[in-house]
Amino acid sequence: MNAINKPTVKQYDYDKIRQQDKAHFLHPWQVFDVFREEGALPIVEGSGNHIVDADGKRYFDAVGGLWCNNIGLGRVEMAEAIAQQALQLSYANPFVDMTNAPAAELAAKLAELAPGSINHVFFSCGGSTSVDTAFRLIHYYQNCRGKHDKKHIISRINAYHGSTYAAMSIGGKPGDHPPEFDFIKDTIHHLSYPNFYRAPAGMDEQQFVDHLVQEFEDKIAELGGADKVAAFFAEPVMGAGGVIVAPEGYLKRMHQICKDNDILYVSDEVVTAFGRLGHWFASKERFDIQPDIIISAKGLTSGYQPLGATLFSDEIFAVLDAEGSDRCFAHGFTYSGHPVACAAALKNIEIMEREQLLGNVKEIGPYFEQQLKTLEDLPIVGQVRGINFMQCVEYVADKETKALFPEALDIGKRVSNHADARGLITRAIVHLNVMSPALTMTRKDVDFIVSTLRESIEATMADLRAEGLLDG
Amino acid sequence: MNAINKPTVKQYDYDKIRQQDKAHFLHPWQVFDVFREEGALPIVEGSGNHIVDADGKRYFDAVGGLWCNNIGLGRVEMAEAIAQQALQLSYANPFVDMTNAPAAELAAKLAELAPGSINHVFFSCGGSTSVDTAFRLIHYYQNCRGKHDKKHIISRINAYHGSTYAAMSIGGKPGDHPPEFDFIKDTIHHLSYPNFYRAPAGMDEQQFVDHLVQEFEDKIAELGGADKVAAFFAEPVMGAGGVIVAPEGYLKRMHQICKDNDILYVSDEVVTAFGRLGHWFASKERFDIQPDIIISAKGLTSGYQPLGATLFSDEIFAVLDAEGSDRCFAHGFTYSGHPVACAAALKNIEIMEREQLLGNVKEIGPYFEQQLKTLEDLPIVGQVRGINFMQCVEYVADKETKALFPEALDIGKRVSNHADARGLITRAIVHLNVMSPALTMTRKDVDFIVSTLRESIEATMADLRAEGLLDG
Repeated sequence: MNAINKPTVKQYDYDKIRQQDKAHFLHPWQVFDVFREEGALPIVEGSGNHIVDADGKRYFDAVGGLWCNNIGLGRVEMAEAIAQQALQLSYANPFVDMTNAPAAELAAKLAELAPGSINHVFFSCGGSTSVDTAFRLIHYYQNCRGKHDKKHIISRINAYHGSTYAAMSIGGKPGDHPPEFDFIKDTIHHLSYPNFYRAPAGMDEQQFVDHLVQEFEDKIAELGGADKVAAFFAEPVMGAGGVIVAPEGYLKRMHQICKDNDILYVSDEVVTAFGRLGHWFASKERFDIQPDIIISAKGLTSGYQPLGATLFSDEIFAVLDAEGSDRCFAHGFTYSGHPVACAAALKNIEIMEREQLLGNVKEIGPYFEQQLKTLEDLPIVGQVRGINFMQCVEYVADKETKALFPEALDIGKRVSNHADARGLITRAIVHLNVMSPALTMTRKDVDFIVSTLRESIEATMADLRAEGLLDG
Repeated sequence: MNAINKPTVKQYDYDKIRQQDKAHFLHPWQVFDVFREEGALPIVEGSGNHIVDADGKRYFDAVGGLWCNNIGLGRVEMAEAIAQQALQLSYANPFVDMTNAPAAELAAKLAELAPGSINHVFFSCGGSTSVDTAFRLIHYYQNCRGKHDKKHIISRINAYHGSTYAAMSIGGKPGDHPPEFDFIKDTIHHLSYPNFYRAPAGMDEQQFVDHLVQEFEDKIAELGGADKVAAFFAEPVMGAGGVIVAPEGYLKRMHQICKDNDILYVSDEVVTAFGRLGHWFASKERFDIQPDIIISAKGLTSGYQPLGATLFSDEIFAVLDAEGSDRCFAHGFTYSGHPVACAAALKNIEIMEREQLLGNVKEIGPYFEQQLKTLEDLPIVGQVRGINFMQCVEYVADKETKALFPEALDIGKRVSNHADARGLITRAIVHLNVMSPALTMTRKDVDFIVSTLRESIEATMADLRAEGLLDG
């Protein structure tokens, strides 16, 4: 089969793809006024950390797809495993009392990798449906326990938890809650986010943590006490909300409040699991907290296949599985445990183990952090932050006051446009450029990213000066 | 690559797979008390309409996976197209202003196949997320129009629309709404389902349709009029709710009420599209209604890859895309427009076109219907119903009164167990056996299904007689 032995690269007509795309494909987060004029950049090839557009231009993709390209694009082994499974069993019904071998194997493997008593897996097709499943699982669990009023969900401002109606309601990014969309408001609540860089003036880190912990306790009381609060959702490091690394002690103390109040702790590890921080799962290994539920997706297959997993504890399962209760778990998806997606995940994990990619993240991550930090000498870089292969640069108009540029100026996009022109893809989120490269990244790649980003920021500053928007 | 040229069939240990599955994989619709004892049947191979379990036993899968295996399992061409795409571009970020070639091509192809002005596509990973997307798109559309109170959704009892929190709330199967789960109740409402077999006594078909239409009009009035009702959701033929083919005229009249009241008509074609009834989409071609939104998944890739699509009209898009509105469509999934899934869909459609599978459905479908109908001579078969490759047998304890067997007797499961033993998989849903085989089915396959089902029903009757549960 020459697609594998001698891959024939399929060629596309740049203009035709752009025209088809513009006319028919509504994109996630499409900005209508801009898209109508500019359309989208069509990507047609990818290998390792590089992608190629339909014009043949090659880019280093420092975004890693969308936090998901963990082992790198275009691996022959992955294409083989996927093709082998598509040929042997391209689909199997997972409902009720039928299963398939790759799904069962993957469930067992995830139970082995996940911390503590997290030994049960519900499969879906991505992070959003895994969060939505957690939301429904929490209802089920609390109702099974007879705790029918224990229904409030507590999340955080700037959290990102996916995009179903329920998942987006749990998320708390103001930009994701525009007035055109509706949300669940009566049972979902948002606390402050643990961004010390933008903490209330005069607080030190310890005081800031005390303040956030107090806010959580006050919210529980306000909602009527522990008997009304079902679960707390948190990313160990906030992703799309701005790569927010909480101050020391925050996660452990928030987790302790959950334990003390019989509140389920849901750790959304869609971004942080499978190596981005150097661990299979970061909750326990990095932050020393034992969640009740872990959400996983993205790195689970390195984005080769749509797959998500809601992992949960023996304690939760025991409540569901009470003997003689005559219960049916009336929830699930046609593609829960899709054999091809599960085979891809198994091969992905095997590659990470064999190539010791978690070790590479632990080795190169600190260098990436340290080199990116050097950008803080630039006048518009307010802060560089992150852990290992999850990093972000925040731009400010004034380093002293931390004042932001006007949102309409789209500073992150201006920098990323300059970076695009220089062959580097970073993700612009308003005032930020976010990076999450493949775990195979080398020191040389880091040097390319950092020097290109420096040039791009300098070019942006030159533009701003020319437009009279920046002094000096 | 020998996975393609000389496929090596991967072997599995039956007991190990069963043990891993039981310990770690929570299944959709798992019945805890039964699963704890019996576990799941592990499927390890599939080709065409056949699947093979880990013990080597071969079955004709008349369920077609889960209404999704349209072109048949294990096609070399599909494995090649999937592998080729995984190698060339295994993932591309679809957010904001980036796209990939297979997604753009597929969006254009779907616009060509879909009826009327349905020319826009939002991609997700399956039917549930496509319904959830429609729900959010409806909010967006009505809010953009300033119609902030036009929010009620009308659906039907026994509808199935997927399993996110929103999708399951739109669905109306009583068995899917057990007390352990919570649902959106304030804005989602359910009308009677158009099952003439169980219509109120004394009504003829025409009176039954009048009754259902009146109920819809009454519901709109009860909710405060047309300005309060956003959308009506309906499967052209109800699937999991029991393969309900509505009486002549019902769909057209319900559709007309939507038009008259500025209510969006959402046609959930997850099961009926891509050939199951003999058409690309059944709404217009079979039932002569032009929906505003069509939901598609399953047959779109024949289940080879997780993929869903929410298709919608130019008229809806024009409202979203109003110039100068500064709007962002803050919704979407990492895997919206996944290149590998979209490449699989393109190849799947190409195969359907080349092999004229829609023609086969139109040719063999009536024979399947007619042969299955012969089972109605059996004393416990109440009704055989369906259209073409979407069929169902309903069992009754009394043909005159149409009284059902007690639910705990699990009649559908008893028959399907006998069928399993004879190498035929049918789907048991309480009092039903549901069938949706691959579109490649031949007359010989039909004869096997019908004769095996007859034997299985007769064996079940013998059991019931032996247990004193059936007279005669």
